[in-house]
Amino acid sequence: MNREKLIAQIRAKRSFLCVGLDPDLGKMPEYLNGDLLEFNKQIVDATAKYAIAYKPNLAFYEVQGVKGYEAFERTVQYIKTNYPDIFIIADAKRGDIGNTSKMYAQSFFETLDVDAVTVAPYMGEDSVTPFLGYNEKWVILLGLTSNKGSHDFQLIRDENGTPLFENVLRRSMQWADSSNMMYVVGATQGSMFADIRRIAPNHFLLVPGVGAQGGSLSEVAKYGMTPDCGLIVNSSRGIIHASKDNDFATVAGEKARELQEQMENLLKEHGIL
Amino acid sequence: MNREKLIAQIRAKRSFLCVGLDPDLGKMPEYLNGDLLEFNKQIVDATAKYAIAYKPNLAFYEVQGVKGYEAFERTVQYIKTNYPDIFIIADAKRGDIGNTSKMYAQSFFETLDVDAVTVAPYMGEDSVTPFLGYNEKWVILLGLTSNKGSHDFQLIRDENGTPLFENVLRRSMQWADSSNMMYVVGATQGSMFADIRRIAPNHFLLVPGVGAQGGSLSEVAKYGMTPDCGLIVNSSRGIIHASKDNDFATVAGEKARELQEQMENLLKEHGIL
Repeated sequence: MNREKLIAQIRAKRSFLCVGLDPDLGKMPEYLNGDLLEFNKQIVDATAKYAIAYKPNLAFYEVQGVKGYEAFERTVQYIKTNYPDIFIIADAKRGDIGNTSKMYAQSFFETLDVDAVTVAPYMGEDSVTPFLGYNEKWVILLGLTSNKGSHDFQLIRDENGTPLFENVLRRSMQWADSSNMMYVVGATQGSMFADIRRIAPNHFLLVPGVGAQGGSLSEVAKYGMTPDCGLIVNSSRGIIHASKDNDFATVAGEKARELQEQMENLLKEHGIL
Repeated sequence: MNREKLIAQIRAKRSFLCVGLDPDLGKMPEYLNGDLLEFNKQIVDATAKYAIAYKPNLAFYEVQGVKGYEAFERTVQYIKTNYPDIFIIADAKRGDIGNTSKMYAQSFFETLDVDAVTVAPYMGEDSVTPFLGYNEKWVILLGLTSNKGSHDFQLIRDENGTPLFENVLRRSMQWADSSNMMYVVGATQGSMFADIRRIAPNHFLLVPGVGAQGGSLSEVAKYGMTPDCGLIVNSSRGIIHASKDNDFATVAGEKARELQEQMENLLKEHGIL
């Protein structure tokens, strides 16, 4: 999906919500018997009206081995078939030497045919560029993440006082532009969005950490929103596991609608709608 | 596998060779019809005498989707069943927020039950520690990698002049010790092994980049070997794809034996045998 279509979808749905499809077996209703695909189908059907993107995280599938990997593939196929306008992000945080990253790129952009994949920057340019050779496909590079450990290395300042995550942004902007690169920036780092927007004024940012991880949506919009919105805000547990009972899909739909309404208001406040 | 058993295996086999099971469909003999498992079985049978570890890289399996993932699982099972003393490394370079890394740890150390997994450090402590809670299982953290892009971020010096990879080593040594943590250090960075040994004198280092990527084995041993060997040197393409023809397994066995002989000499030179 290209940037124009993504922006058009945000305007049409009055939302910049991404639903994280990270199903935790222990929080699924018993009658599903651990069936990740069936869980996801019901979540997707209940939330597709309010969401512009889905982001399955591979970890939650690989944990079930081959069966889980199959549920992942079939979830992607289900979304593509039934909701072809929705942006699909494989949250995989991959990154390896060039010829290996090429294999990962092929897995995600050819075999699975998702729109975007999250990539870890530690190994540098040749670990990232193999993902950039695909038309209308995106790299979402880890910038400043939402977890506590983000402080360990991402904030280390270089000899000029520039923190590592800023070096990642600046250097990677030489490899791609805002038409095929986004950055992961955690919502728990609210005030730092202003710094990031000075470096990357136009790039879309994928923002995890709203809800369960404690980030504030209005703070993110205040510092991070651009004239094109420029934000994809993810919520996982706060939507998909809002209820552990048989009504999980209905409750997920309600939670997604609540977030969509807040997002609609923010889009209006910022003159985008 | 614990450290003592690993060292015992190195002494018994007179080798510190890891064979990278990264099968490239384009380089496999036609009669195998892309059957990764059968390819791996033949490679393993031909090389197990000379190798102390196998390292399948997930990218080469995921590229085939569910079928590939299944071949990965069954390769691990084949090695565990037939060569139970061999150390198995899932080269996955994973790393995510705490509760997600926990899922990955479960995938690799419970579902698959491999001995070690490679982990990317960018997200910091809580992305790594979930892998550390398993008895006789290992984290192999990316330190200084063998690819060109390693220079982009890993060598950025902080305000005290310390490069990022050294900060990764130093900080992560607070999370685990040499009984359950190793580091990836590329063989192409030969002279830097001395710096690394000043920081981590006892840790095992997983060294890719010998052979196809141009690193020198004797250089690595000169600067990196410890009284316990302390090295696991990986070769992938140089062994498994040394021949594209029907004799691929025989040739792989010969290449592995050549490396084992070089390693035996180096172990003797350094007084370990």
